[in-house]
Amino acid sequence: MAGSVYGNLFKISTWGESHGKGIGVVIDGCPAGLTLNEELLQRYLNRRRPGATKYSTPRTELDKATILSGVFDGLTTGTPISIVVFNENQRSHDYSEIANYYRPGHADYTYDGKYGIRDYRGGGRSSGRETIARVAAGAIAKEILNQLGIDIVTYTKSIGPIEINNDNFNKNYIEISPLSMPDKLASEKAEVYLQKQMEDNNSAGGIIECLVNGMPVGIGEPVFDKLDASLAKALMSVGAVKGVEIGAGFDVAKSTGLENNDHFSYLLDKDTDSKKLIKLSNNAGGILGGMSDGSEIVIRSAIKPTSSIAIKQKTVNKDMDNIEVTVLGRHDPVIVPRAVVVIESMVAITLVDHIFMNMTSRIDKIVNFYKK
Amino acid sequence: MAGSVYGNLFKISTWGESHGKGIGVVIDGCPAGLTLNEELLQRYLNRRRPGATKYSTPRTELDKATILSGVFDGLTTGTPISIVVFNENQRSHDYSEIANYYRPGHADYTYDGKYGIRDYRGGGRSSGRETIARVAAGAIAKEILNQLGIDIVTYTKSIGPIEINNDNFNKNYIEISPLSMPDKLASEKAEVYLQKQMEDNNSAGGIIECLVNGMPVGIGEPVFDKLDASLAKALMSVGAVKGVEIGAGFDVAKSTGLENNDHFSYLLDKDTDSKKLIKLSNNAGGILGGMSDGSEIVIRSAIKPTSSIAIKQKTVNKDMDNIEVTVLGRHDPVIVPRAVVVIESMVAITLVDHIFMNMTSRIDKIVNFYKK
Amino acid sequence: MAGSVYGNLFKISTWGESHGKGIGVVIDGCPAGLTLNEELLQRYLNRRRPGATKYSTPRTELDKATILSGVFDGLTTGTPISIVVFNENQRSHDYSEIANYYRPGHADYTYDGKYGIRDYRGGGRSSGRETIARVAAGAIAKEILNQLGIDIVTYTKSIGPIEINNDNFNKNYIEISPLSMPDKLASEKAEVYLQKQMEDNNSAGGIIECLVNGMPVGIGEPVFDKLDASLAKALMSVGAVKGVEIGAGFDVAKSTGLENNDHFSYLLDKDTDSKKLIKLSNNAGGILGGMSDGSEIVIRSAIKPTSSIAIKQKTVNKDMDNIEVTVLGRHDPVIVPRAVVVIESMVAITLVDHIFMNMTSRIDKIVNFYKK
Amino acid sequence: MAGSVYGNLFKISTWGESHGKGIGVVIDGCPAGLTLNEELLQRYLNRRRPGATKYSTPRTELDKATILSGVFDGLTTGTPISIVVFNENQRSHDYSEIANYYRPGHADYTYDGKYGIRDYRGGGRSSGRETIARVAAGAIAKEILNQLGIDIVTYTKSIGPIEINNDNFNKNYIEISPLSMPDKLASEKAEVYLQKQMEDNNSAGGIIECLVNGMPVGIGEPVFDKLDASLAKALMSVGAVKGVEIGAGFDVAKSTGLENNDHFSYLLDKDTDSKKLIKLSNNAGGILGGMSDGSEIVIRSAIKPTSSIAIKQKTVNKDMDNIEVTVLGRHDPVIVPRAVVVIESMVAITLVDHIFMNMTSRIDKIVNFYKK
Repeated sequence: MAGSVYGNLFKISTWGESHGKGIGVVIDGCPAGLTLNEELLQRYLNRRRPGATKYSTPRTELDKATILSGVFDGLTTGTPISIVVFNENQRSHDYSEIANYYRPGHADYTYDGKYGIRDYRGGGRSSGRETIARVAAGAIAKEILNQLGIDIVTYTKSIGPIEINNDNFNKNYIEISPLSMPDKLASEKAEVYLQKQMEDNNSAGGIIECLVNGMPVGIGEPVFDKLDASLAKALMSVGAVKGVEIGAGFDVAKSTGLENNDHFSYLLDKDTDSKKLIKLSNNAGGILGGMSDGSEIVIRSAIKPTSSIAIKQKTVNKDMDNIEVTVLGRHDPVIVPRAVVVIESMVAITLVDHIFMNMTSRIDKIVNFYKK
Repeated sequence: MAGSVYGNLFKISTWGESHGKGIGVVIDGCPAGLTLNEELLQRYLNRRRPGATKYSTPRTELDKATILSGVFDGLTTGTPISIVVFNENQRSHDYSEIANYYRPGHADYTYDGKYGIRDYRGGGRSSGRETIARVAAGAIAKEILNQLGIDIVTYTKSIGPIEINNDNFNKNYIEISPLSMPDKLASEKAEVYLQKQMEDNNSAGGIIECLVNGMPVGIGEPVFDKLDASLAKALMSVGAVKGVEIGAGFDVAKSTGLENNDHFSYLLDKDTDSKKLIKLSNNAGGILGGMSDGSEIVIRSAIKPTSSIAIKQKTVNKDMDNIEVTVLGRHDPVIVPRAVVVIESMVAITLVDHIFMNMTSRIDKIVNFYKK
Repeated sequence: MAGSVYGNLFKISTWGESHGKGIGVVIDGCPAGLTLNEELLQRYLNRRRPGATKYSTPRTELDKATILSGVFDGLTTGTPISIVVFNENQRSHDYSEIANYYRPGHADYTYDGKYGIRDYRGGGRSSGRETIARVAAGAIAKEILNQLGIDIVTYTKSIGPIEINNDNFNKNYIEISPLSMPDKLASEKAEVYLQKQMEDNNSAGGIIECLVNGMPVGIGEPVFDKLDASLAKALMSVGAVKGVEIGAGFDVAKSTGLENNDHFSYLLDKDTDSKKLIKLSNNAGGILGGMSDGSEIVIRSAIKPTSSIAIKQKTVNKDMDNIEVTVLGRHDPVIVPRAVVVIESMVAITLVDHIFMNMTSRIDKIVNFYKK
Repeated sequence: MAGSVYGNLFKISTWGESHGKGIGVVIDGCPAGLTLNEELLQRYLNRRRPGATKYSTPRTELDKATILSGVFDGLTTGTPISIVVFNENQRSHDYSEIANYYRPGHADYTYDGKYGIRDYRGGGRSSGRETIARVAAGAIAKEILNQLGIDIVTYTKSIGPIEINNDNFNKNYIEISPLSMPDKLASEKAEVYLQKQMEDNNSAGGIIECLVNGMPVGIGEPVFDKLDASLAKALMSVGAVKGVEIGAGFDVAKSTGLENNDHFSYLLDKDTDSKKLIKLSNNAGGILGGMSDGSEIVIRSAIKPTSSIAIKQKTVNKDMDNIEVTVLGRHDPVIVPRAVVVIESMVAITLVDHIFMNMTSRIDKIVNFYKK
């Protein structure tokens, strides 16, 4: 079936392989009247571009986005927006050997099992380059969220055993840290840890955390299309993610009702003499019953260590022999920092889709929308 | 929008409130020719029925399922199957007070924020009784999986700090344990822990683990509809779930590529003199690149402690006062054991949907399907 | 796959067989705050109820609707609305014989071919009783349209060769005419024609016309989800419909561009001294480029003559014999008048879905929706 | 919402404007293993290419298709297939004037009403060039149908008042006729008629008929996703189509049950001594109860005369003046012949989607599919 289409009202359809002609996305359902140009897309794409630091693959690509449709006089027109990034630096000869065996930790085996054929060059469709399309669409989703006053901050929470200390949290450091960590000390320690992995031809994993502020109350559809459920799918669909948690997450398992419940309270704003509803804690992570409760949304994803490592590993070939292989080529020792913008993009796309879906929840608001 | 419909090809549409006339589900897309009757549904529904043990709400309901359509002469006909469980034991007076305040940890506030109105009786649509519809549909999905030789085992992995010991794993004990644990010792310890929470009018959380065996290779659609992504959504859509992980899950963050990669190997079956592909470990949890790899699927969900506790808590009322409340009524001190069959149902429904979607992945198989 | 679910944002899931326990529908995506009760549903259901005139089947059913969920204190809550009409007058013995042969003009053969099994009692799922679910959902859709000032008028345009004369058009006569015709003279002539068909044990077809007024400009999504495309599907999905046309319809084939183009013009309203855009003709039927243009939507459906006739016809049985059969039982000599409300319901449901979908077409309107 | 995405399992996402950078489509859900190359696409695209005869716009474009993804070593891989046709001959200056007024019969007014902005160059997204994407996707759908032994023949049935005579039907003449008519005499008469319209700066409409042979029994999903309902939507979504009918179509309205019912009969094949079920007539047009019955599918679409004519017409401008305009530029005097392949493409895409959906209708066939 069609697994490369995502979203209900803000719908994206992605395509492309690592060593094909390019990677692209068609966004159908972007509202008219939004300012959009290639420079804006490029700012987001540059955040996942390879070659930026020594912790990413030396494959150097500019990943230059071209808008092919849906924008007129600098504004979106409401029609589908087609974006393409042509591949420039395909070195197919690097990958020819892997046509005959299954790389451990990769999708080679399952692609073959499903389709009976695979584009083995650089992982084909299962390559991390697929996420270019997510980031291009995410850039547009973030522009929509900006218009609505909704802000997303995403960063590396941990690399291997090195975790940020919330006391040192410095949002501005995220862009400075080569590992996208908001804690200078942790970032430096993580670099040492990574250096060690690189010396060993090994790789590292980590955790990405995403904070969303400014959400209206009530975004998310009860039962199956809960906001947290949709976010979980969005994030787990990113190649290397093996776990997703909201708010207190897995810690709730050991908690008690008394500890875990967030209490509501009205806070008096003395300046305006008005009351504002707050929660006295946020174990729920900003989502109650699958709907945003107006507080900060907190969501984390566990990223596995890069599967491609230049260490000898056991596997099998197509002749059904047990063999040993060393996966050469250009690989990131850790993909967490580059995945930060991918995670943020999936969150943004999912939020926009839900914000759109929520618009038909009350008849009075619908009547008001169409009045005059 | 419509948040109570789930699935693409095996599509379920659920409805009902805790204290309305009943709870139901319409399954559209169930294949014709499957044996189905109310006894079969009842076996599954009894696994989540209240009142079974002292750890579940004393609300005694038979939760008797009636099939209203889609079955003829004991077989499904391919047309929609409508199932209803009428509510019997609605004691609305228990709940009248909560019309005016927001229970901590519940969806009262977000329902009001989204819809401007809510059925406050027993939580209305956000009540755990909503899961009856999931289990009824899940029963049918499991019958389909049975026909395909696919087996699911689901159990309580931990309650609060008490976790099963894999060395004591006894599948048969799951049904015996009042907490659905496959480890007698852990189950008994967890009972002691729960007893303590009940004495304190407090509640407990836990972790549910689900194992799937017999999956064909290649189930799951690359990119957005990865099998693990769909499972994550399915499970996170269950009310109390706050985290989902596959295989090694969050542990991958601290792992290295060398530790985490599962190596492929051919195993020689001496009897048949044929080779079988296996993985020498299963950190991936049976899913590679979003598609089943033929090994055991392992997935875990973190369940929060029951939000309704008979301890005084801070909250607000509709008059915008800060108040203190004690949530009375009939509540489970832990919902983990009753949620086991709900989790299993969501996994089963999701697998069936993906198994159906996979049938169009290869032209040769499609041509063969329609031949003669 | 799931063929009994319809709509994107206003989503209906229908179920039930002619001689099963009942017919029902679950509406997911109805906005909260709409006044709804069983009396309102009943008014619509009575318009398609059998036994009302001598031109409909003598099967007497009250077709009483029960609301099982989604309504609280007389208002919709935004959660799924489940409606059931239990079957009362199932006389299965009338139909037992047809288990063994395929009725001409019916779906017996194709159901068997698709599913390998069919509920042959009264046509099972393919019975006209299926449309009860459409009308129940349509009643709710019409209430939403009422709130938005959108009006639908539907009537019989022709029965057999007898067509209404637009000079005699009398909207009030639609309810008086036993054939739902807005022209007294034509209605009387059509009765004579029908009487003749009944004497011959034969049956008649006809055309249903539907007029929609009050539509905002711009409803409908360009390219595939054009408003007219969606309406065509909605109407062609009604059992006996064999053709659908918009505005000038099939007559455009013989027309020229000069004749067929509708010219725009501003009309000066002297009272308000404001200009109103009108079209000087309406061959387009109120839809341009798949979007409503603010003028009257005009859509017609061709309804085939009832397939069940008590005349000897050739067919085959399951033993692969060529046989002759006379289809007995209770049948309408014409279904056009009872189909009027079914057509109106499908139009209403489709319009509501599109009106909802249109709400995300402009960023300024979205921002305004969420402001304060 | 997203109106440029079509299909459930064979899903196409189209984009592009008349005078933008190009027109394209992403096909997600094409099975792996299908032979595909640009030459094959080109053969279909050439059938709608402008400039081929004197009855089409003199805009000369090669409409050269490029495949950007989803094909490897000449075979589809199961991943999304992205196809682009870059625009070459955009003469924007031809169209600049129309920015300020609404062309009669066009979507200028409704686009503005919906989106508040429109790409007015050559009609932007509402241009007939949009159908390039449909034809490219249709070419692939037809290849799939070829594999399944399903054949589609599509042709011009009438132009203005000139209709083909079935006695003169010559399938081979369709490609020879500049109007795609299968009747030499009618084609020549229609040319004379068209010549007259061209001299008058006027335009003509017509009817396109499509015949499908080789369909398995049971394709189509009962109730809302009937095969004829889906086809009706598919065809009505093509810009100029104002009516769709199946089999006897609108003639059923004047017919009787006895005349209209198709009788079943077993035909003895003497060579194989086996019986074959046939219908003795085909008023149903190959579809019973929304499912294919194995006989020929017959479907017709009414195409309106080209709206762009070089005759003075009344309309309005953005300053709210009533004005008169003459629409200059390059326009087809009739679009019927070029629309033939567009209609055929929409039928092919819809059939493939339904053939795929049908694969999960029976549990025995599903079990058999996954066996070994």
